[in-house]
Amino acid sequence: MHLPCTFIVHQQDRLARHSTFTTPHGPIEMPAFAPVGTLANVKTLEPRDLDEIGCQLILANTYHLYLRPGHRLIEQLGGLHQFMGWRGPILTDSGGFQVFSLAHQRKVDKDGVTFRSHIDGSLHRFTPELVMEIEQALGPDIAMVLDECAEPHDRHYLDAALERTHRWAERCKAAHTRADQALFAIVQGGVFPELRLESAAFLSELDFPGYAIGGLAVGETKAQMYATLDVTCPALPTDKPRYLMGVGAPEDIVHAVARGVDLFDCVLPTRLARNGALLTPAGRINMRSAQFAEDIRPVQEGCACYTCRTFSRAYLRHLYKAGEISALRLGTIHNVFFMSELMRQIRTAIANGRFDEFQAVFLDHYRISDQTARHEQRARYVSALRSRP
Amino acid sequence: MHLPCTFIVHQQDRLARHSTFTTPHGPIEMPAFAPVGTLANVKTLEPRDLDEIGCQLILANTYHLYLRPGHRLIEQLGGLHQFMGWRGPILTDSGGFQVFSLAHQRKVDKDGVTFRSHIDGSLHRFTPELVMEIEQALGPDIAMVLDECAEPHDRHYLDAALERTHRWAERCKAAHTRADQALFAIVQGGVFPELRLESAAFLSELDFPGYAIGGLAVGETKAQMYATLDVTCPALPTDKPRYLMGVGAPEDIVHAVARGVDLFDCVLPTRLARNGALLTPAGRINMRSAQFAEDIRPVQEGCACYTCRTFSRAYLRHLYKAGEISALRLGTIHNVFFMSELMRQIRTAIANGRFDEFQAVFLDHYRISDQTARHEQRARYVSALRSRP
Repeated sequence: MHLPCTFIVHQQDRLARHSTFTTPHGPIEMPAFAPVGTLANVKTLEPRDLDEIGCQLILANTYHLYLRPGHRLIEQLGGLHQFMGWRGPILTDSGGFQVFSLAHQRKVDKDGVTFRSHIDGSLHRFTPELVMEIEQALGPDIAMVLDECAEPHDRHYLDAALERTHRWAERCKAAHTRADQALFAIVQGGVFPELRLESAAFLSELDFPGYAIGGLAVGETKAQMYATLDVTCPALPTDKPRYLMGVGAPEDIVHAVARGVDLFDCVLPTRLARNGALLTPAGRINMRSAQFAEDIRPVQEGCACYTCRTFSRAYLRHLYKAGEISALRLGTIHNVFFMSELMRQIRTAIANGRFDEFQAVFLDHYRISDQTARHEQRARYVSALRSRP
Repeated sequence: MHLPCTFIVHQQDRLARHSTFTTPHGPIEMPAFAPVGTLANVKTLEPRDLDEIGCQLILANTYHLYLRPGHRLIEQLGGLHQFMGWRGPILTDSGGFQVFSLAHQRKVDKDGVTFRSHIDGSLHRFTPELVMEIEQALGPDIAMVLDECAEPHDRHYLDAALERTHRWAERCKAAHTRADQALFAIVQGGVFPELRLESAAFLSELDFPGYAIGGLAVGETKAQMYATLDVTCPALPTDKPRYLMGVGAPEDIVHAVARGVDLFDCVLPTRLARNGALLTPAGRINMRSAQFAEDIRPVQEGCACYTCRTFSRAYLRHLYKAGEISALRLGTIHNVFFMSELMRQIRTAIANGRFDEFQAVFLDHYRISDQTARHEQRARYVSALRSRP
């Protein structure tokens, strides 16, 4: 039988924590960043790439895998790890976020949410019990409860949504039986401190092995996001990991670690790479830019990723300009490595009691793209929320 | 200084030859197949993949690289090998085939060919001297002379085209000065034995270090292609490698090796993979097919490629159906490995004096897709020729 998950905080530097969360598929040193493999595949990468990059955890999307190829098929083929050939830890979200951002004609009620597939319009219904069935069939190391991710400023709606989210958390906990899988709760409450505190208190009482902070990076300002973390993190158990869902940008990660967050996931590094935007300590660079046409330097001087060890900016620019698939992959290798390396540096800084200094230096060098950048990634979500019936 | 290229035939089995062509970037054991890296990149693959697969030679397209990013830029960045990070042998075509198949408003005259770029419509002119300048700037191990690839059945036109091709071969030879680069001639003449013999005799007299057979797999029947090889190969020097350009399909390669061909290139394995058609000893399989939805077997039982060692058909089908980029790459890895392995088996069979037997068994098992399959790849070319002014 697999060992249960354990969480040990090695070092705390103000609120920032260096810790290890151990899963049946290995340890995750935190703070950690999980690249997203929506369809049981981190786009353009293979398991061996993730190993080489040093990824400790990947996220797969329950909503997408439920629709295609189906959780029963994946279960029959031996579960997600076997299916995708990845031996390290996997986390699946609950599908809640996707239902609210991607699916059509969704209707929430006390008991669950009914929606139409964004692929073929077919009708489906998620209840806490079905989502637990799906996630247990998929077999990740970490599963998430079904929650409702609502528009963060709509106080009236949030009251009702939070009530549903809490009932669903209880029902997920009751329905979850896999001892080799950790079920994390999700704190909601939009940008309202009193709702966040209520949610953190309620869910802490239920004693989950980990706590996510959901409903952020969905349209609120950065200041509101940081303020929400300032309120929420101290209200969560100190002996459980804290996971900020859907974040994100390097600067946001640094700010969130400073507030006590241990775990992150985001499509940002992989999606940016496919758009030709590559991450460096000085900020993003656009590899399609003419300024790189004759540039023999690697994307990032001193970077140890395969792309930087092997190719010049001039070559990468050529591949991007010519529309070669390899460009998307080589860019992804670099960006995911960049995030991995950022998290390594963060952990080292905390372990050495110098996170403040690291944060100051990093933020001083990292040029933040326009403030709308963070919103790009979930623009569809926000517009979907605004059209909520 | 680099060693000049050498060619040694180790073993001959009837007309099939096991040989080694040595280049400044290493030996090529022949019969060999070169995957195509049109834009200095074998689509979806990296140099380390080509190494792992055991590729001995890749082809890059002069026409494409001349247009984008430009041969002068590649030269300035250290040449093709340095630019694309590939340390093994490279062959460039002359661009002639692409000018005749891709470019717009081309006009051939005695001295060269004028055309408009298929990318931006800009006006260009290739002469034998300019093509030599481009290929010497790119710096492959093997360069090809500028030739005219004409419609294979048009006897009247072919007479004039062959005359041009021969003059251009002389001029290319005169203009070619890089001692570390082997310049290969190209035999033309369509499906007419007397023209092929004339071309082989004329070019043999000029004493090139290698001889290509061009103008095949462009719309003639398979029987015509094999008959042309039957005539042409024996008319070429025995101490020089023979290269059948743009071929191809596994069954064509086996038939051509039996007729004395040593070298091949084709986009087929890489293009097929991107279309979801994967190669096996029993023929192509369509990975999108529903029959593979629950198939836990690898693409090809016993195959040692990364894809087959790691993933099931069910997983690959899922990736193809979901439109994941990784599917294209994993399929390409398998198909290029399949070709590499086929060539290894061919060489072993010749070395053991059992090529006949290998050929019989291979062709007995390999189900050939419909006869139009070979034509697909150059359909655009043929239609372009038909619209020749």
